[in-house]
This record gives sequence, structure tokens and C-alpha cells, in this order.
Amino acid sequence: MKVAAYAAQAATERLAPVAIDRRAVNREDVAIDIEYCGVCHSDIHAARNEWGNAKYPCVPGHEIIGRVAEIGVSVTGFKTGDLVGVGCMVDACLSCVACDDGDEQYCEKGALMTYGGIDPHLGGPTHGGYSKRIIVRDKFVLRIPENLDAKAVAPLLCAGITTWSPLAHWKVGKGDKVGVIGLGGLGHMGVKFANALGAHVTMITTSSQKGEDAKKLGAHDILLSRERDQMKAARGRFDFLLNTVPVAHELNPYMGLLARNGTMVMVGAIEPMPGFHGGLLLANRRRVAGSVIGGIKETQEMLDFCGEHNIVSDVELIDMQDINQAWDRVVKADVKYRFVIDMKSLQDVS
Amino acid sequence: MKVAAYAAQAATERLAPVAIDRRAVNREDVAIDIEYCGVCHSDIHAARNEWGNAKYPCVPGHEIIGRVAEIGVSVTGFKTGDLVGVGCMVDACLSCVACDDGDEQYCEKGALMTYGGIDPHLGGPTHGGYSKRIIVRDKFVLRIPENLDAKAVAPLLCAGITTWSPLAHWKVGKGDKVGVIGLGGLGHMGVKFANALGAHVTMITTSSQKGEDAKKLGAHDILLSRERDQMKAARGRFDFLLNTVPVAHELNPYMGLLARNGTMVMVGAIEPMPGFHGGLLLANRRRVAGSVIGGIKETQEMLDFCGEHNIVSDVELIDMQDINQAWDRVVKADVKYRFVIDMKSLQDVS
Repeated sequence: MKVAAYAAQAATERLAPVAIDRRAVNREDVAIDIEYCGVCHSDIHAARNEWGNAKYPCVPGHEIIGRVAEIGVSVTGFKTGDLVGVGCMVDACLSCVACDDGDEQYCEKGALMTYGGIDPHLGGPTHGGYSKRIIVRDKFVLRIPENLDAKAVAPLLCAGITTWSPLAHWKVGKGDKVGVIGLGGLGHMGVKFANALGAHVTMITTSSQKGEDAKKLGAHDILLSRERDQMKAARGRFDFLLNTVPVAHELNPYMGLLARNGTMVMVGAIEPMPGFHGGLLLANRRRVAGSVIGGIKETQEMLDFCGEHNIVSDVELIDMQDINQAWDRVVKADVKYRFVIDMKSLQDVS
Repeated sequence: MKVAAYAAQAATERLAPVAIDRRAVNREDVAIDIEYCGVCHSDIHAARNEWGNAKYPCVPGHEIIGRVAEIGVSVTGFKTGDLVGVGCMVDACLSCVACDDGDEQYCEKGALMTYGGIDPHLGGPTHGGYSKRIIVRDKFVLRIPENLDAKAVAPLLCAGITTWSPLAHWKVGKGDKVGVIGLGGLGHMGVKFANALGAHVTMITTSSQKGEDAKKLGAHDILLSRERDQMKAARGRFDFLLNTVPVAHELNPYMGLLARNGTMVMVGAIEPMPGFHGGLLLANRRRVAGSVIGGIKETQEMLDFCGEHNIVSDVELIDMQDINQAWDRVVKADVKYRFVIDMKSLQDVS
């Protein structure tokens, strides 16, 4: 089956409409007609080969919302017409200890990424959500609460779970003093989740305007990271820091903010980082950790929590034809806080 | 009261015998006739002002073993003749949350260090265990199991608790795959404790000889950190890494060894560290943490555990007159694994 998709071509670094093959709907598969797909900075990194591992043609997109169009004969958890989602993974071994623990993102054999992975059915790269349809093993399909605005749910599948997972894993809860570092697609979800979990939330940012924006999203307090006096006064204040900064940055100023036994979890920066002061880490028995998206079970838990608490992403809806301009704006961090593509705008090309 | 002590003199960087004042035995105090004092690399850093905060005259020593000579009128936990110990701290506020939690080493008002702290009784710096006598608030005095070799217990008060505390705090236990990085005063205790706690212990070292030495101490396995093939084969193997390296060093090779949810705890390096790769930290949800000595309650728990399991340090007993040569050998890491001063050798000078 050929379906319309927008694929990045290596030569141009531009997305262009193409027809790509999809596999047949196997026994355990769910075919999804895609309605919305969020735009993640990773899409740009991958399509522009900034991580050095691009496979072309590359169809990006791993914040996918749609309706079930067809199910395999063994599928019992979904029926045609269900509102569903797909995130960053479409398969994993499901037999290693990590998968047994619901940590498919750390699958010992490697989870199959939604795009750019090695497709075991068709060969070549897996193709993501900038497309009319996707076919996914049922265990990697999420149920979306119908009370939520579907387009604004899309970013929960990556930006949402990436911030939810560490908050849940480290059991952030009522009364905890949480700092969210950086206000972008990830940070704005971190603020919403930490607030909903009952924490006292401080937005830590270089920009007083972003601080004010964060207050509208649920932050109780602002800490301006370039103001030495503010930073000094906040030393040892935080139980948990959610560090969403997506590029290399100095850690010492943030580490000093951690209270005894406090943890800073990095979810954005996957590049070489500058050094830090060993003494700062030892003092207060501080911890610096990393976290990658989240498992399928906890993604469902997050979505259910969002349904109960009416939490969605703040999004700007675009047509597929606007994607190149949108990418340029993502690179400039000029979006509050996530672009979502309305897939109705994607025309058939085959 | 003047007692004989060996004090570092700033001008010479050499230890010389001096007479120093001791406070009176107050209501909650225990006066201890010192029998043994371990030699910690910190003693040298402090006396040579390598941390930039030395106060002279400096009487080093915070691995103190002795017998109770006198008790204050309010002291109920000790009696004359008891075998007791004093570690790195001699007081703390005992009213902050950290102290309430038994984490006096992280006291919010700052614990009073055994030497080089600001003595609230006499003014000037506190004076440590290279001395005939020390007077300490009872809550900071430890009971030493009488079945253990007293001289070999001394290093437990710093090297021991510094490695025990993270193993206990992170609940290392039966079947855990533990790597101990570096085999010195700290590392050799880490190997013994991790073994006694039931973990599978790997010595991670640059030296195959040290690896063999570690096996005699309880390590089950050796990993040579300069052997690329060995390091590659060990990626993702360890649940817990106890990093005892006392100087700045590359973390990436060690971080890669951590399994999912694995933690590397740094207990030695308190200087600026080189950078690390963010992607390595995010993968496997790894954690890098720091830890400083341990609280009084857990120090007592460690000593009781040592009494039950017959664990002591491997020491080389020296006379006070040999201290300068011993320090030179400590700097060259030429000791298995801790010098301990026999305080009988300290002559009265007053």
C-alpha cells in the first residue's frame, strides 16, 4: 500500500511530498489514519542528519494522533474508530528485563524507533507520522482520552512523556520543590505536570518574559539563571530539577541549587557537556541523572492522568505545506510551544 | 590542659611535636586517650593548605581510636575504659532536618570538622587525632566492637564510612553487580564491604597487580580500565559503581559501564571534573552522584556490622616520628592501604 508522506531528501534538507510503501496489517497490527502529528526538534536533527545517522528517505514524526482504521485478527485492545496515539517507539523485543519492567525505551536489544529505525517488515528505515497512515504493533499504540483536544495531545507522545517519566520515576509529588530549567516544548509540559502533581514549581530561565509565561502554565515562582544574587539565594533549595535545555551548557550553577539528596534529571542535552565541580556533587549527596522518553505503560498512565486533569500541550496548528517555515521557527525557538501538523492538509500524491 | 600533639606548621609543611590546649570536659563531653590514629590523604591536603583553607597550627587526624578517660556529668552512653572512636566530625547543630535524619555530615549549619573547624569552646581551629587526647561531645563518639583489632579499626572512621555510606544509602545488596573504581584506602574498604553485603564485586583499576590484590580482599572479578576490549565488553554491566578516584578524571568510560538505572557514586574527587557525554547519561537512565563520609548513626551501624563480620582495614602501623615519610608515601600511593599511627610513640612535650 502506498500512502502520501512528507519525506526529507538528503540533498535538499527540505521536506517534499512523496508516496511511500506501508506494510500489510499483520495479526497484531493496528492501522491508524493520522489526524495530527507534532513537530519535535528531533525531526529536524534526524532529517538534516545532525546526529550523523540519518537514513533517507526520512519521514519524520513521532507525536502521532489518529483513528484506528483497521486491526489485525489478534488485536483485542482497539477497534475501528478509536482515538489513538503513537510515540517515539513502534516495537521492542518485549522479552528482556527492561521490556519486562515496562522500560521498552531501554530495551536491551534496542527499541524500534518510529522513524529512522530498521524496519523488520519492509527493510529500509521506519517511516514516521508526517503521513496519512501508519501501521503499528498494538502494544505500542496508546489510548487517547476522548475528552481532550486531540491536536493538543499529539506532543504528549514525546515532549509529554519525556518530562512525565522522570517526574514519575523519581516520585515527585506534593510539596516537593521542583525547578524546571528551560521553557520550550519539553519545559512547558514539565511545568504543567509538576504543578498537577502538587509540587511547588519554579521556572528557571534566562528570560523574565519566559518566567511570566511559565507562571501562566502553572509555575509558582521564577528564578533567573543569569542573576547571581537570585541564584546564590536559591542554593540548596530544590528537591528535583528537570533540566530540559537541549544543548550543552554549564551544570555547576544548577547543581548548586540542589538540596540534600536532590536530583537533577537531564532530558534534553545529548551532546558532550562541559565539566562540573566534583565538590558540588559530593556536597548534599547530589545526583545528576538522565532520562529518555518513557515506557508504554507509563505513557498510557500519563495520558490517563492528562484525561483526568485536562492537561494538554499548548500548540500552534499548521498545514503540511508550512512545515519548512515551521522547522525554521523551531530552530529559532519561536513557538509556544509545539507545532502540530493538521494531516487533513496532506494531499494524496499517489 | 595542654597535651602533646603533632602540628603542621605552615612555614615548613612538616609535622612537629607541640603542646596544645584542650578544653575542659563539659557536661556532654567524653575525654579520650588516643591509642591509634589513621592517616588520611585529607590530612596532607589540609596541612599543606592544598584546599586553600588551612588554619595553623593544624593538628590533623580524623580516624581516631582510644579509650574513654573521663566523661561529663550528663554522659550516659559511655564509661571510663570503653574502646571508642571519633571520625571526621565532632559536632553539628543537631536541630536541622539533615541532623534529624542522621545526616550530620550535611548539617544545614555546617558540621564541625574534627580538625580545622572553628572550635566553639577554645576559639581557633579544632585539633584532630595526631595527639594524646581529644575531648568530644558524646553524640559524636562511636562505640568500637572489642573483638576487632583496634589499630585496624581506625581507618573505618573515614575511609570506611565514606565507602559504607553510599553502599548503604543506595541499598547495595545480594546479587548486585558492583564495581569499585580505584584501590586505595577507600577502595579497599569498598571491596570488603560490597563483598560482605553479598554483591558481586569487580575491581576496576589500571593495574593488573591491583586487580589481583583486590581479589584477596574479596573482589570476584577484575576489569582493567585501559583495556578497550574489556571495557567495551563490560558496557551496561554494573548496577552500582563506587568511584574512589581522588583526583579529576574522565567519567565517560565509567558511565558507559552502568546498567539501566545504575548509579555511579563519587566519593573521592572534589575538584573540577572534565566534561561527560550527555547521551551516555540519558541512555539507561544512568545516575552520577556524590557522597560525603556518613552520619553518626550509620557510622555506628557500619562499626557494628564490622564487628559481626570481622571486617577491618589493612593497615601499616607507624610511629609518630615516621609521619613525614609516611605522608610522602601516601602521596605516592605507596601504602596497603592505610597508615595508622601508634600513639604510644608520641612523647610528652609539655
